[in-house]
Amino acid sequence: MSDLRVGVVGVGVMGADHAERVVRKTAGARLVAVSDPDWARAEGLGARLDARVVADPLELIASNEVDAVILASPGFVHAEQLFACLEHGKPVLCEKPLTMDAASALQVVEREHKLGRQLIQVGFMRRFDPEYAAMKQLLDSGELGRTLLLHNVHRNKSVPTTFRSEMIVRDSMVHEVDVARWLFGSEITRITVRTPQPTSLVADGVLDPQLALFELANGAMADVEVFVNFQVGYEVRCEAVAERGSATIGLGAGVFTRAGGQWGGAMPADFRVRFEQAYDIEVQRWVDATVRGEIDGPSAWDGYAAAAVCEAGLESLSSGRPVEVTLADRSKVLG
Amino acid sequence: MSDLRVGVVGVGVMGADHAERVVRKTAGARLVAVSDPDWARAEGLGARLDARVVADPLELIASNEVDAVILASPGFVHAEQLFACLEHGKPVLCEKPLTMDAASALQVVEREHKLGRQLIQVGFMRRFDPEYAAMKQLLDSGELGRTLLLHNVHRNKSVPTTFRSEMIVRDSMVHEVDVARWLFGSEITRITVRTPQPTSLVADGVLDPQLALFELANGAMADVEVFVNFQVGYEVRCEAVAERGSATIGLGAGVFTRAGGQWGGAMPADFRVRFEQAYDIEVQRWVDATVRGEIDGPSAWDGYAAAAVCEAGLESLSSGRPVEVTLADRSKVLG
Amino acid sequence: MSDLRVGVVGVGVMGADHAERVVRKTAGARLVAVSDPDWARAEGLGARLDARVVADPLELIASNEVDAVILASPGFVHAEQLFACLEHGKPVLCEKPLTMDAASALQVVEREHKLGRQLIQVGFMRRFDPEYAAMKQLLDSGELGRTLLLHNVHRNKSVPTTFRSEMIVRDSMVHEVDVARWLFGSEITRITVRTPQPTSLVADGVLDPQLALFELANGAMADVEVFVNFQVGYEVRCEAVAERGSATIGLGAGVFTRAGGQWGGAMPADFRVRFEQAYDIEVQRWVDATVRGEIDGPSAWDGYAAAAVCEAGLESLSSGRPVEVTLADRSKVLG
Amino acid sequence: MSDLRVGVVGVGVMGADHAERVVRKTAGARLVAVSDPDWARAEGLGARLDARVVADPLELIASNEVDAVILASPGFVHAEQLFACLEHGKPVLCEKPLTMDAASALQVVEREHKLGRQLIQVGFMRRFDPEYAAMKQLLDSGELGRTLLLHNVHRNKSVPTTFRSEMIVRDSMVHEVDVARWLFGSEITRITVRTPQPTSLVADGVLDPQLALFELANGAMADVEVFVNFQVGYEVRCEAVAERGSATIGLGAGVFTRAGGQWGGAMPADFRVRFEQAYDIEVQRWVDATVRGEIDGPSAWDGYAAAAVCEAGLESLSSGRPVEVTLADRSKVLG
Repeated sequence: MSDLRVGVVGVGVMGADHAERVVRKTAGARLVAVSDPDWARAEGLGARLDARVVADPLELIASNEVDAVILASPGFVHAEQLFACLEHGKPVLCEKPLTMDAASALQVVEREHKLGRQLIQVGFMRRFDPEYAAMKQLLDSGELGRTLLLHNVHRNKSVPTTFRSEMIVRDSMVHEVDVARWLFGSEITRITVRTPQPTSLVADGVLDPQLALFELANGAMADVEVFVNFQVGYEVRCEAVAERGSATIGLGAGVFTRAGGQWGGAMPADFRVRFEQAYDIEVQRWVDATVRGEIDGPSAWDGYAAAAVCEAGLESLSSGRPVEVTLADRSKVLG
Repeated sequence: MSDLRVGVVGVGVMGADHAERVVRKTAGARLVAVSDPDWARAEGLGARLDARVVADPLELIASNEVDAVILASPGFVHAEQLFACLEHGKPVLCEKPLTMDAASALQVVEREHKLGRQLIQVGFMRRFDPEYAAMKQLLDSGELGRTLLLHNVHRNKSVPTTFRSEMIVRDSMVHEVDVARWLFGSEITRITVRTPQPTSLVADGVLDPQLALFELANGAMADVEVFVNFQVGYEVRCEAVAERGSATIGLGAGVFTRAGGQWGGAMPADFRVRFEQAYDIEVQRWVDATVRGEIDGPSAWDGYAAAAVCEAGLESLSSGRPVEVTLADRSKVLG
Repeated sequence: MSDLRVGVVGVGVMGADHAERVVRKTAGARLVAVSDPDWARAEGLGARLDARVVADPLELIASNEVDAVILASPGFVHAEQLFACLEHGKPVLCEKPLTMDAASALQVVEREHKLGRQLIQVGFMRRFDPEYAAMKQLLDSGELGRTLLLHNVHRNKSVPTTFRSEMIVRDSMVHEVDVARWLFGSEITRITVRTPQPTSLVADGVLDPQLALFELANGAMADVEVFVNFQVGYEVRCEAVAERGSATIGLGAGVFTRAGGQWGGAMPADFRVRFEQAYDIEVQRWVDATVRGEIDGPSAWDGYAAAAVCEAGLESLSSGRPVEVTLADRSKVLG
Repeated sequence: MSDLRVGVVGVGVMGADHAERVVRKTAGARLVAVSDPDWARAEGLGARLDARVVADPLELIASNEVDAVILASPGFVHAEQLFACLEHGKPVLCEKPLTMDAASALQVVEREHKLGRQLIQVGFMRRFDPEYAAMKQLLDSGELGRTLLLHNVHRNKSVPTTFRSEMIVRDSMVHEVDVARWLFGSEITRITVRTPQPTSLVADGVLDPQLALFELANGAMADVEVFVNFQVGYEVRCEAVAERGSATIGLGAGVFTRAGGQWGGAMPADFRVRFEQAYDIEVQRWVDATVRGEIDGPSAWDGYAAAAVCEAGLESLSSGRPVEVTLADRSKVLG
């Protein structure tokens, strides 16, 4: 069985990480091509990892030498590039967001559905994190009864000053949206985003932290704190409350020290540290599934649904009121 | 300096505990009288603890032999008994609720204010728990910056089947109301109580768990889960999120075991186990303050404000919508 | 029932704490007299706590106004003061050490035995710490099977430079000696004290940390690290390993913070913080037992046995070899 | 760059795991051949993983199609197979033990040294565990000052009844030997193995648990509990005590639950669960280093030194006394 030949579109931080990952840590795959608007960046990486540099991402996608694509380009070019993947029948692991809005995401879903074959997997990597996976397994086992509530926390040490209130919903809360949909196995039907008096350590007008309430079709609820200027470190925590117990992940791990008057440990600096293993597993399993002609993770629909929830979330952020999530009828779209 | 002579009105579980506490663990106090509608119960306790049994609680309150009163009678007789304490100038530690509704609680506040001397302390014992006290101190120190959010969890193993949805607000959530007001040093101005699909391990029609959002005058917010049929044990957890860090109390404590395939420890069975030390400290400090002619803990106003928030909470529980808390003007009432 | 009238001999840090404790936190007891070679210190405390100051400790012990004595004087005067307590039939809570050596301690044991009544309780306060007590209860329940091993750690932030290697055994390790004897319910028959290359943060010639192995009559063993210049804070940890599981106490407690890049909590500064509750319980239970004419804690024999183990430990410290503990025949001494 | 062609000798549990690992999780390597005395077992695995089955392990080692070898055969054939690897210049990842005794292990070291090239890496996988690696990095950083002591615990849920006292030293404690040598960067010069009264849940005559003391050339010490019939689960814990603090790894991780009256989490069932990630990293890094013509982990000398310490440990186990470790002069052997 020969190796899957992978091309990476967009080699900024995430794309370069993925390219390295394919080369250094993934069985059964080979990096053959990279593409990036920043030619020097692409060339440097291509030289280091022994991959061809292709100027035009659409050419990379179309190339006969490329079996499958990792899309780590900016979100606003995803739609075009995903359509190209679908046209050429190329399996693609697409970093979130699927596209820039729910309407175009739905078009992607529909176009893929017409092909009659799932080619698109969305990069919600948390589903591959061993802790999240173990929690999902525990909840699905029914050992704790039905799951009633989630309490989620998503904190970044800090973000660039260009990171505005809307991005907190679109780029950070979106992960919590996927986690809630996935853990409950149900769609979010309503979202409320509220904001307390913001931290003073942020530019004027940025609403940080935010507190969201998700209401799901199955009657469950999730509350979510997103706080992207927490100062301390990166923290993603999730507590599921079920009828006969609760389960929590994301508590401190690693070396436990007693030093400087304190007991405890270090917070991870950022998501790349916290979720490195999740990314490794995601890419390995995506490669394995691709070889089998399948996907093994969040689908285009999941990307679309997350986008629709975030759009409603943005409306709620500005109104302070609950907003219904309008989702296409899944059974019709995928029927 | 002779001992403070304490009378206890109502010697059910809490009152009997307090009577024992005065006798067995409290310096500078002596139990002199107990009163309870259940004469046999009062007599048993009085015999065991060497205290006089008084049939009429108002007679106990009025008695020259009693310097101060602990009120652990049912809430619906509090108003009358508190008025008696005020009339006779007797300091009183009153178990929550202060009275049955905000209107009568306000009358108590006003009556005490006219006396020109604080005689009433309300039994929100959590303020005396060493963990809560340490958290309060940490937050007030400013070390973590301004406090922005609280995430609170209040869980009971189970409650009697007579415990209905409204009691979850009145009897359980009320503690969270006091904690939020106290930690933030600010009034709650709006409350939203929402309920997911209830646990199946509860009688039909009981809305358990409940998820509340408190909005405070200072712009802060608190979300609170109250789940009184959690099955596992008693758990009270509080996380404060501030500008430069967070602080959590109520995580597992005690003996850490590795046994039966698990690492961890035992959940406390109920609030009497979890807050035993808090009660001990509360009563000792109340005795000490009473001797000095002061109170040293939550005031009648705190009892009134908690009642007002819970009334709004009940309205929200039935409507599902945010409800403004209507509070008398403190500066006028106590001005 | 009138209060137990307590006199405190020696009002340095521990004695003053105990005097305060009797006055401020203990039911059923009254502080009537204090004595200290430092007259000003005694007078200051006596004035503050409204107790008579007696110059001669033996006069305090003999006084008709004193029902029971707390001995917090230096160890080298304990023998004489304990004999006085025995002579006058005064119950006494004696801070460790019982006396300065095993031989004199045995004399105390024998003298008390002749009286036919236990008057002496030794101040090994750890037995009253709620965590230790819960561990003892768990081990005695048999739930984990027979206990095989203890792993103990005793660390101080730092000690005065006058604290020499021998004092690490006598004053610090002695607590571990009592803990091992108590938890196993068996005598220590052999002790080995070994020392690695010492920390550089200590005066030349001081052997710190030390590593001891206790072997017990019932076949169990305990290893103990004592490190009195740990720099970080005060830490006392104990892990019991039994046939079907292990139990650990002394892990971090209190407020859990995420701040400054770290998750965790603060180490207690010293033993007075860590064991404050243990001391409170010890004194309350000693008062209660004294009123009943009993002791309720470690006996003179326990003080003697600890002294004998420490003497062997000192011999092992200098030789590096296992040393047998020579203990009088308990059944003969107390027969 | 073409893939490294790997042959696996011995496809019992560990060897089969490694073969799977090469195929499913390792970049830059290909499984080409397997060998096992149990032909059916080898054939099954070879068919499943698409690898050639070779009856004679020495033929596999000699084969031109094999670039590098993973040795997971029983220890008693290691010497012969390692010599074959050296003869044919084949890099080899050899599961512990290197050989069955220190003398033959030293011969392996000497033979490799004559080649002038390191071909042998020993499978002490803990060095690749992220927690151990982080601890090593912390200790080497000097942040906590010099490391003085290790407290190690190694527990298995249970072992087959054929697992005798000597195997506890050879097969379990040997990992602690490597950990101590590696973390301190110093040789163990003396070992004492002591045993308390054994657990009753083990066959007569088996000395379990065992308590060892390692003394190192640099003046440090390590105490080690090995308990292979702990009943609860697999637990490997390591606490390093340094001049300015301590660091611990191996505390509970994973999903934190509150259920069944308890808070906590599950113990891993066995070492394959606990150290899966360590094995993955070990094999990937071994492959990467092999391609570069290097080793990247414990060397033949480390295997030899561990064997020599265990031999002394066995002597101490039977005598109960400290035994000096006799090690060849490293500078002469490798000079």
